[in-house]
Amino acid sequence: MDDEKTGLALDPIARLIQAFHKLPGIGEKSAVRLAFHILREGPSFAGELADALVDATERVHFCGSCMNLTDRPLCALCTDPRREQTSVCVVENVQNLRAIERSQEFRGLYHVLHGVLAPLDGVGPEQLKIKELLGRLQNASSEVREIIVATNPSVEGEATALYLVRLLRPMGYRVTRIASGMPIGGDFEYADPATISQAFAGRRELV
Amino acid sequence: MDDEKTGLALDPIARLIQAFHKLPGIGEKSAVRLAFHILREGPSFAGELADALVDATERVHFCGSCMNLTDRPLCALCTDPRREQTSVCVVENVQNLRAIERSQEFRGLYHVLHGVLAPLDGVGPEQLKIKELLGRLQNASSEVREIIVATNPSVEGEATALYLVRLLRPMGYRVTRIASGMPIGGDFEYADPATISQAFAGRRELV
Repeated sequence: MDDEKTGLALDPIARLIQAFHKLPGIGEKSAVRLAFHILREGPSFAGELADALVDATERVHFCGSCMNLTDRPLCALCTDPRREQTSVCVVENVQNLRAIERSQEFRGLYHVLHGVLAPLDGVGPEQLKIKELLGRLQNASSEVREIIVATNPSVEGEATALYLVRLLRPMGYRVTRIASGMPIGGDFEYADPATISQAFAGRRELV
Repeated sequence: MDDEKTGLALDPIARLIQAFHKLPGIGEKSAVRLAFHILREGPSFAGELADALVDATERVHFCGSCMNLTDRPLCALCTDPRREQTSVCVVENVQNLRAIERSQEFRGLYHVLHGVLAPLDGVGPEQLKIKELLGRLQNASSEVREIIVATNPSVEGEATALYLVRLLRPMGYRVTRIASGMPIGGDFEYADPATISQAFAGRRELV
């Protein structure tokens, strides 16, 4: 778009469109739509979002134990006395932690890696929160016995799981991996071959 | 999501997610994704968007003549001496103005209504920038002779066009309406009956 020529590159509008366009999943058309929505709504609406942006990035940091995001020294999960202290569920990111919490399936502690091993993208063990995991396990007060590796069932997730097993099992921990297979409500007709293969490999006796 | 229970309703994160969720087309999942992206990118990235939001809503206002959005008294289109001063293209909103400019089909002036007549939604002529249009036409320096009504070919757009014809034609202006029909590259197989009907009604002799 030759916005200069058309006189539409009014600095503040173009700048707002560009700022939205830098967000993931926001294409140029969406950015334009969002910018004009903001302009229609006016300063107080825009100010609310602006304040939330600044406030969140200034106040939120890693939990001192599990690397979840929090605005306190330790996150609400780590300070909740009702959580089982003997198992740690290792996840790739905070979104996955949230998803697992939503299922109410797990009542232990978490550890957020903030990534997975991806050597081609330059992500090695040092780029993940693995030394922080070792640090808390070695803490005298740690009661952890089982580590459940809940990285995604992707190539990188599996590689990361393998790395953690080899690192932690020799240290005496029970290291387990979440099951892979057909998703509940899924249909073989639409399942990818890798999932079907996992579903067969992981089959169990009916009881 | 019972974020309270999971301890994830850390005020600043939840607030940022909510602020994103208020934007059009941003569902809950997208809002979460955007918020975590912001948190990953950090304060300077967030600050850039926050500044753009505040700056745009504080500095941008309606052009004194055509109701385009601008940070100057008159927009760049109205102050461009190369634009033909004899015709005004009436559009629903600034996005449509931008789309028409991009086609480089029209070299005259614009007028942005900022809406269309929609009586059921309480939008009458007073809610649109119609008196501002009359004002500029009645200005002694106005050279406008033709008014091209380029509201969208929707029920509301047509109603608005009809209203403008009835208002402006008695005042001596040539009032025209953009053509409706099959879009270029379109296929009758996928066109809606109303478009096909328009395409037939508006047919012309081949030359």
